[in-house]
Amino acid sequence: MTVPKVQARVPRGMRDILPQQMIKRQYVMDTVREIFERFGFEPLQTPALELKETLLGKYGADAEKLIYYAQHSQGSEELALRYDLSVSLCRVAAMYQDLPKPFKRYQIAPVWRAERPQKGRYREFYQCDVDIVGSASMLADAEIINVVYQGLKQLGFKQFRTVLNNRKLLAGLAQYAGVPAEQAGRLYRSIDKLEKIGVDGVKEELQANGVADQAAAHLMDLLQMRGTNRELIAAFRARFQDYPGALAGIGELEEIIGYLNALAIPEEYYQIALAMVRGLEYYTGPIYETLVEEPRIGSITGGGRYDGLIGLFTGQSFPATGTSLGIERIIDVMDELGMFPPGIGTTVVQVLVTLFDTSSTPATLEIASELRRGGVNAELYFEPGTLGKQIRYAAKKGIPFLVIAGPDELAAGQVTLRDLASGQQETIARGEMLGTLQRWLAGRARGS
Amino acid sequence: MTVPKVQARVPRGMRDILPQQMIKRQYVMDTVREIFERFGFEPLQTPALELKETLLGKYGADAEKLIYYAQHSQGSEELALRYDLSVSLCRVAAMYQDLPKPFKRYQIAPVWRAERPQKGRYREFYQCDVDIVGSASMLADAEIINVVYQGLKQLGFKQFRTVLNNRKLLAGLAQYAGVPAEQAGRLYRSIDKLEKIGVDGVKEELQANGVADQAAAHLMDLLQMRGTNRELIAAFRARFQDYPGALAGIGELEEIIGYLNALAIPEEYYQIALAMVRGLEYYTGPIYETLVEEPRIGSITGGGRYDGLIGLFTGQSFPATGTSLGIERIIDVMDELGMFPPGIGTTVVQVLVTLFDTSSTPATLEIASELRRGGVNAELYFEPGTLGKQIRYAAKKGIPFLVIAGPDELAAGQVTLRDLASGQQETIARGEMLGTLQRWLAGRARGS
Repeated sequence: MTVPKVQARVPRGMRDILPQQMIKRQYVMDTVREIFERFGFEPLQTPALELKETLLGKYGADAEKLIYYAQHSQGSEELALRYDLSVSLCRVAAMYQDLPKPFKRYQIAPVWRAERPQKGRYREFYQCDVDIVGSASMLADAEIINVVYQGLKQLGFKQFRTVLNNRKLLAGLAQYAGVPAEQAGRLYRSIDKLEKIGVDGVKEELQANGVADQAAAHLMDLLQMRGTNRELIAAFRARFQDYPGALAGIGELEEIIGYLNALAIPEEYYQIALAMVRGLEYYTGPIYETLVEEPRIGSITGGGRYDGLIGLFTGQSFPATGTSLGIERIIDVMDELGMFPPGIGTTVVQVLVTLFDTSSTPATLEIASELRRGGVNAELYFEPGTLGKQIRYAAKKGIPFLVIAGPDELAAGQVTLRDLASGQQETIARGEMLGTLQRWLAGRARGS
Repeated sequence: MTVPKVQARVPRGMRDILPQQMIKRQYVMDTVREIFERFGFEPLQTPALELKETLLGKYGADAEKLIYYAQHSQGSEELALRYDLSVSLCRVAAMYQDLPKPFKRYQIAPVWRAERPQKGRYREFYQCDVDIVGSASMLADAEIINVVYQGLKQLGFKQFRTVLNNRKLLAGLAQYAGVPAEQAGRLYRSIDKLEKIGVDGVKEELQANGVADQAAAHLMDLLQMRGTNRELIAAFRARFQDYPGALAGIGELEEIIGYLNALAIPEEYYQIALAMVRGLEYYTGPIYETLVEEPRIGSITGGGRYDGLIGLFTGQSFPATGTSLGIERIIDVMDELGMFPPGIGTTVVQVLVTLFDTSSTPATLEIASELRRGGVNAELYFEPGTLGKQIRYAAKKGIPFLVIAGPDELAAGQVTLRDLASGQQETIARGEMLGTLQRWLAGRARGS
């Protein structure tokens, strides 16, 4: 082949995940997948490419600018790389209407967005979604919040909090403030800035958008109200007694909180927050997002009920609710807080089987096979050579143990096991190799 | 939102993998991943999008026509969706030259090719690659063949065979036939058709391409030669004694076969086949492919040594070898032969927790939580209603067991467990629920 050499590089804003980091990612994905399945969510896979028409009109104009388009020389279809997993789920729900309902699915898969690259933000990143299609019950929303809680607990998170709100309540808030329904989105965006621009900033924006002074003041009082979930519900119910839509939203929140209570989730883990609005347009009922306080990285999950979205595809509509776990942020936080179990993040290899010379290759192959049959992740060194070189290789990779079977050991029916961290080694009968190594590995997993 | 409704559909040649099929895929992927890690292969992830220049010139003109291109409105980079995982691996090897060598990696990920859609062939499909970068040792090639053998065994395959050849031997064959090196590719393509067009067909093609009658006859003799691996090696060595390149290739095959023998892989599982040439241009040494006889689906793995490919990117070159498991075909074969373990291919849910009325919701939530804490995949029914409806739902989904906790059971501190397949049920004390269900599940997994 005569091909011009090209520089090896990746597209802007994209990255390779090398083994050490990938082992951590797999640990997180395997853990959440196990929890999702424990709750009865089923796996789904959809193609990375969707028809352009499937995506357009779902996310709003700003988001649409970030969509990647695709084509090939053989056809005329207009294609796009998926922007999230929710729209693909809605397409699936519309296409396969005979799927048993509720349809509970999870999907862990990459999405693509041409955002301005910056630290910790990539143009290809994984989403990790759980959704329930076909149930209008608040039990479904409580289950979504519960699965997030159990997943984060399983990963070792201790300090986090799911904040809850309801779009029906927010719509009531807009009514209450005298903001016409079609301008409610602008009101939500102002409210969303409370953390960033403060009370006075939001009040100014409200007034600039025509909210009367007194209404704005009332509104700011509401947004800043603090108290237990039950206190907030009682206060909102009193304030919104003439707004049936808002009352419906309050009732939904009360129902969800009752279920979370029955599930014995400590109250410190969930909190109604009227100022939490979620960006996407398509939510229709309860909305929720999970915040980590330490480090202050913002939200690591976000979701809510979107009863209208599936109806955007021809055919029957279904109520639906769900959430997305920000798995990239979760991995970042776990890295920063050192939350990975010992050994997760170096190598999958548990033992390096050293190779001395070509005459001992067959015996060395036998040793590697025996270890692998015994469930030990064993790497065989391919180039016969000095022990020093092989130890340096194992140390560079972080392989914890070495099996040394030189000509002397082999002749005596023995092998030497070496613990690379401590430098300790033990020469034992060949027949005791597997059992001894399994004990060493078990001890290491216990952290001893 | 006012969005025109669009029909829910996927791009041509693409598909959704619904849960039942996805559970089977995950079973296969989890199994091969476990075996790969047992051999010390580390996981790697690369972006789906590569720079166009990274892909072009690697696959040949016919393949290049099938590449998908991508772009977004924010930038000018020329992007393409990856066509395979090998080129991305080579780019990684060239970019991160300080990765410890040998660099053993696996990657299980989708690739995109705009092929004409047909039964069993899709434009997005998964590849499942294991490769070793940085070792020229034939031990590395033997390890690739071994990991494929162990992986297929672990999946339950009984009848399969890896056929081996060597590009150096094939180059010697071309010399022997008087075909200039730059036309060797055409010779290989003729040889590759032996199964399809028969001995006479190949001979005609050779003669049409200027191979002399006598050389063509010798060549056909060689291609049709049968015997054990050792017999073939001896015969080839005698025939090619004046062709040093061919002898080097024969020596490599002999070395690999010695290692496979030392690994105690029965000889029926691997066979030298001079007529197996592999399509891709970039192979430089041993090549291998695995065939399943029953059903006759063709090759389910294919690979070989490609010592020159990494050098196509600027920087240092490295020897490399590896294979791709055709995971889509493997799943098809396993489906056709009914090779999946019982329960794989219906639902992840092991038990449905029924819900009778809103008053029993808190107790029902407690039951679901207890089961989940006990490691049971439990689905909670969201809509209180008749038992009949909930049984029909469980049956439609294939959920094996039901927990029934109606008001009477709850009042008596009991629950009823029901085996949906047999219709048998048992009313037991609430405290015995988890233990009894775990026993039922263990019995089911044993197939009893």
